[in-house]
Amino acid sequence: MLVVLTGGTGGAKLIEGLAAEMDPAQLTIICNTGDDCLFHGLRISPDIDTVTYALAGLGDGAKGWGIQGDTFTVLEQLRRLGNDAWFNLGDKDLATHITRTRLMAEGQSLSQVTERIRTALGVKARILPMSDDRVETRVMTREGEISFQEYFVKEHWSRAVEGVRFAGIEQSKPAPGVLDAIRQSTAVVIAPSNPVTSIGPILAVSEIRKALRHSVVFVVGVSPIIGATAISGPAHKLMAAEDREPSAFGVADGYRDLLNRFVIDGADAGLRGRIENLGISVTQTSIRMTSLGDKRRLAREVLALIEK
Amino acid sequence: MLVVLTGGTGGAKLIEGLAAEMDPAQLTIICNTGDDCLFHGLRISPDIDTVTYALAGLGDGAKGWGIQGDTFTVLEQLRRLGNDAWFNLGDKDLATHITRTRLMAEGQSLSQVTERIRTALGVKARILPMSDDRVETRVMTREGEISFQEYFVKEHWSRAVEGVRFAGIEQSKPAPGVLDAIRQSTAVVIAPSNPVTSIGPILAVSEIRKALRHSVVFVVGVSPIIGATAISGPAHKLMAAEDREPSAFGVADGYRDLLNRFVIDGADAGLRGRIENLGISVTQTSIRMTSLGDKRRLAREVLALIEK
Repeated sequence: MLVVLTGGTGGAKLIEGLAAEMDPAQLTIICNTGDDCLFHGLRISPDIDTVTYALAGLGDGAKGWGIQGDTFTVLEQLRRLGNDAWFNLGDKDLATHITRTRLMAEGQSLSQVTERIRTALGVKARILPMSDDRVETRVMTREGEISFQEYFVKEHWSRAVEGVRFAGIEQSKPAPGVLDAIRQSTAVVIAPSNPVTSIGPILAVSEIRKALRHSVVFVVGVSPIIGATAISGPAHKLMAAEDREPSAFGVADGYRDLLNRFVIDGADAGLRGRIENLGISVTQTSIRMTSLGDKRRLAREVLALIEK
Repeated sequence: MLVVLTGGTGGAKLIEGLAAEMDPAQLTIICNTGDDCLFHGLRISPDIDTVTYALAGLGDGAKGWGIQGDTFTVLEQLRRLGNDAWFNLGDKDLATHITRTRLMAEGQSLSQVTERIRTALGVKARILPMSDDRVETRVMTREGEISFQEYFVKEHWSRAVEGVRFAGIEQSKPAPGVLDAIRQSTAVVIAPSNPVTSIGPILAVSEIRKALRHSVVFVVGVSPIIGATAISGPAHKLMAAEDREPSAFGVADGYRDLLNRFVIDGADAGLRGRIENLGISVTQTSIRMTSLGDKRRLAREVLALIEK
């Protein structure tokens, strides 16, 4: 049994590779929910959806969100009706959000809805939200606090950030199955997702971090950064805002109480010694995933580390 | 100022004609809301939407509902996700329901939302729901009570009906503007819509019927029935279930306390005497509206009766 902690884009790529290289029924994915948001009154869970679509073979790898080949008829009409529609939602994608919103209004939890949707889409791996409690990543800027989606999608991560907080995190409990999955796993993979806003919220659910810290399982992380820049998205900017070094070393340092091994890019060979000084073994390889071949090759390498 | 009481299909056709033959800004439409329903957690107001789309030039005249040329991408995906999807909702149409649901969840009334949507779509005529209070048309059958949409859409009005009731009607108040519009109008048109489930709920809002009865305005109705069969839909079946004669006479009889004049089809000349015996003047013409030309010609004839 393998557990993966993940956010959206980068994590979803590695997970696609893992699901192709092992029995996906042995895979449990714990997803960030801090980016969850409400648009047009609909509940959107971007990271859960990106992972679900990737595993269902529906993901739009080029865009990194949504469903490939999706149309935008509803969104265009929403705009015509005077709605603020800067957040892109495709038509098929909307069916997910409409279903989630209705089921949750009827009293189902996010976990139950996530299970139903991944099953309906034929996904064999288990997908668990980190928590069924509402946690909201808030980005602090000089002009005030904004939601992660406002920062990320509306403002294209251009605004200077002073810090990030996870509203509701203190009261949040792990979703059903999360702690058991960690305890029963042979290894935990920390996917190459944003350490601040994707992996950060998961590890900030105190019982999850505690379970990982006290479990004897092997924990392997994959860096989302090469050099001083994230492979995609604003991880390096957000790390700098939190006075963390924007590098693979900075990522490893944030997970130092958890990691047995960290996978970094060959280009970051210079960081090896500093990471090893944290008590973490290092593997160097190519961590950029462009093709399905890349995803599967990196997944194979991660699985080989676990088997060893 | 002209007021029209209406349901969906037939009424929307006459209203399209009226809006083309007069200044639509002088037109106030009072719509049935008894067929309103919730699908996929979204608030749907079929009659308001049919009228709004017709006046915005978006209506699908052939189907009698929805937006012409609309696609069904979301609905197909909802089905794939295991949702019961017998109620047809097009993609553009869904934008209306998503907007309505969000605004009402934020505390706006159905009237406010209706005003916003018709304005956004460039409709000049005022469209008012009969009431902002929830009224639900329930169809009583031997196997139990079902909603109007279950009867009409899911079962294609095939089930034997024992009667109809309007749940919530006793507590319902006219929506803001409804009584003023009636009092300030020069005439009221009762559109050729189902007298039981379209016009029935409007007239069952007691203050609306009272205002019409006590107003001195000229009230003209148009029959939705030729011979013993409704031009579209199950009006004749529902009238028979309520022990009303399924004919133009039966329709006029139900409005006898209100009507000054009733427009029937030439084919129903034989009913003229019986309707006149109710104290209602009769106009015979062709009431079937297939083309825009038909709609405009019938509208002109109705307007001529009012001017006289």
